[in-house]
Amino acid sequence: MKPKLDDVAKLANVSKTTVSRVLNKRGYLSQETIDKVYDAMEKLNYQPNTVARQLYNKKTNIIGLLFPAVSNPFFGELVEELEKKLYSQGYKVIIGNSMNDPEKEKNYLNQLLSNQVDGLIVGTHNQNIQQYQNENLPIVAIDRIMNQDIPVIESDNYSGGKQATEKLIQKGAKKIIHTTGPDTLDTPANRRREAYEETMTYHGLQPIHYSVDFNISYTEKTGIFNQIFIDHPDVDGVFASNDVDALLIMQIAKKFNKNIPEDLLIVGYDGSKIMRNMFPNLTTIVQPIEEIANKALEVLNLRLEKQETLSEYILPVSIWNGSTC
Amino acid sequence: MKPKLDDVAKLANVSKTTVSRVLNKRGYLSQETIDKVYDAMEKLNYQPNTVARQLYNKKTNIIGLLFPAVSNPFFGELVEELEKKLYSQGYKVIIGNSMNDPEKEKNYLNQLLSNQVDGLIVGTHNQNIQQYQNENLPIVAIDRIMNQDIPVIESDNYSGGKQATEKLIQKGAKKIIHTTGPDTLDTPANRRREAYEETMTYHGLQPIHYSVDFNISYTEKTGIFNQIFIDHPDVDGVFASNDVDALLIMQIAKKFNKNIPEDLLIVGYDGSKIMRNMFPNLTTIVQPIEEIANKALEVLNLRLEKQETLSEYILPVSIWNGSTC
Repeated sequence: MKPKLDDVAKLANVSKTTVSRVLNKRGYLSQETIDKVYDAMEKLNYQPNTVARQLYNKKTNIIGLLFPAVSNPFFGELVEELEKKLYSQGYKVIIGNSMNDPEKEKNYLNQLLSNQVDGLIVGTHNQNIQQYQNENLPIVAIDRIMNQDIPVIESDNYSGGKQATEKLIQKGAKKIIHTTGPDTLDTPANRRREAYEETMTYHGLQPIHYSVDFNISYTEKTGIFNQIFIDHPDVDGVFASNDVDALLIMQIAKKFNKNIPEDLLIVGYDGSKIMRNMFPNLTTIVQPIEEIANKALEVLNLRLEKQETLSEYILPVSIWNGSTC
Repeated sequence: MKPKLDDVAKLANVSKTTVSRVLNKRGYLSQETIDKVYDAMEKLNYQPNTVARQLYNKKTNIIGLLFPAVSNPFFGELVEELEKKLYSQGYKVIIGNSMNDPEKEKNYLNQLLSNQVDGLIVGTHNQNIQQYQNENLPIVAIDRIMNQDIPVIESDNYSGGKQATEKLIQKGAKKIIHTTGPDTLDTPANRRREAYEETMTYHGLQPIHYSVDFNISYTEKTGIFNQIFIDHPDVDGVFASNDVDALLIMQIAKKFNKNIPEDLLIVGYDGSKIMRNMFPNLTTIVQPIEEIANKALEVLNLRLEKQETLSEYILPVSIWNGSTC
């Protein structure tokens, strides 16, 4: 039979209330009492029912992370960092990929509203979800605009877009194509395209972009990237919206007999550690993944403590100089 | 003020017990009653307290996933598949990386023992954790030997190791080096090395392996891979334990002026979708990630229903023919 709270109390020679206070770390307790209770729990191999404790504490110590594909190394590393840091603060992490599935995102949000998680860090994009309105929830967004009340952590998308475009121009590219996420999405990442277009125009060059939907198959993506080379056989520069796409485009460029960097310059985006190590040749804009994770946690903690937060936190990017540009 | 169960019962014109039964899907209920209760909840924007419901149901509908670095695309894709499938079965996913941290793994296991999660799928490696002994727990291991009672899902490591080595030999390599995980670990993945050694010996060639610990930095890893080329300047084949390492070794080979495939043939392992799309040139052994996820869930469901399971499930691998071998 499983040992009960009662058994622990008897063995430790204290009241049930005291055991409960030790478990929930409530009120004044002498070290001697705490030790006695923990000794008794160990001897009996007592497993406190954490669900019941949560009910008492009104805290689950679970944070939900909503992120797109963790198979993309940028999100993979970000989620890894967040889990590590949250764990060290005593939180468990529920992970969900609600990309392109507003129902699923609503479901996770309902968990928050029904006290199944203490807070959310959201990096997916689903628009027009009613629940986010008019609620002062412990939510932090990464690179996503949700509503006025939800703080956004982002790296400096405008500066990243500008640095990438300037680099391509400086190395001699003139027909530079930018690949982006879906046009309809309202995200701080759109500032990359803004910077690209302004920088191109400033240099008297024509901006052209191709938008790629999230969650499409590699075959569909390849189709779009092929189209770039068919529509613009004279393309001599590409600013890709992420490193995975940059590498796909490099594969396709080969089929069109474009040598890199002789015939085609290319700059990626994200610069995760794993990509920089596997493919150091790729010139790319580096998002500060660890700093983004740190800031997201700092701001989430402020929200959990019901303190004031800014609406936007912008972190600096840097450039990784490979040989593709 | 937040609406209560009472308010829902009044508006729906049913008893509190009926509302509770609807929420917990217990006993016979007419569709009319179910609809009335849901209508009332919606009108009042009532959020059922799921923690309280769990206490009643003794189910959390949470499955814990313990996996190493999701920034490695193999684990990233596997976790993604598992989350997708578990979500569609009504489960939430808690994710933890307990690699090289037995304390953390124990902590997650204690959650299971204290009813905070319903089951675990474990892919990390920490040995000698007492709690796994003598417990008939709903746990499934992926590529990991835990104890007699815990079923293991794996792809055919022996066949994978043999195919990789045969391919290298067939293409003319003689001095073939195999990189592996830590030597001390008892995992089905060791059969890759077994197959490599047996195949080499069968062909009258000398097997040599370099073991690489998990969780070491890229700098340390690079140090070990550099050493391969220093110790064996005549190396003409590498069978890497995963695709990320295969690509790191390709970077290092360049520094030692080894052209691929002319001077050095290389075969990786894992063959995740993202890697095959980013680097289709890399010849690699493909683990069937989706099938592994499906099987893990199927077996976990059997465990949750306290049904019999086999101790081992082995799924077939295939080879992806790139241009590196």
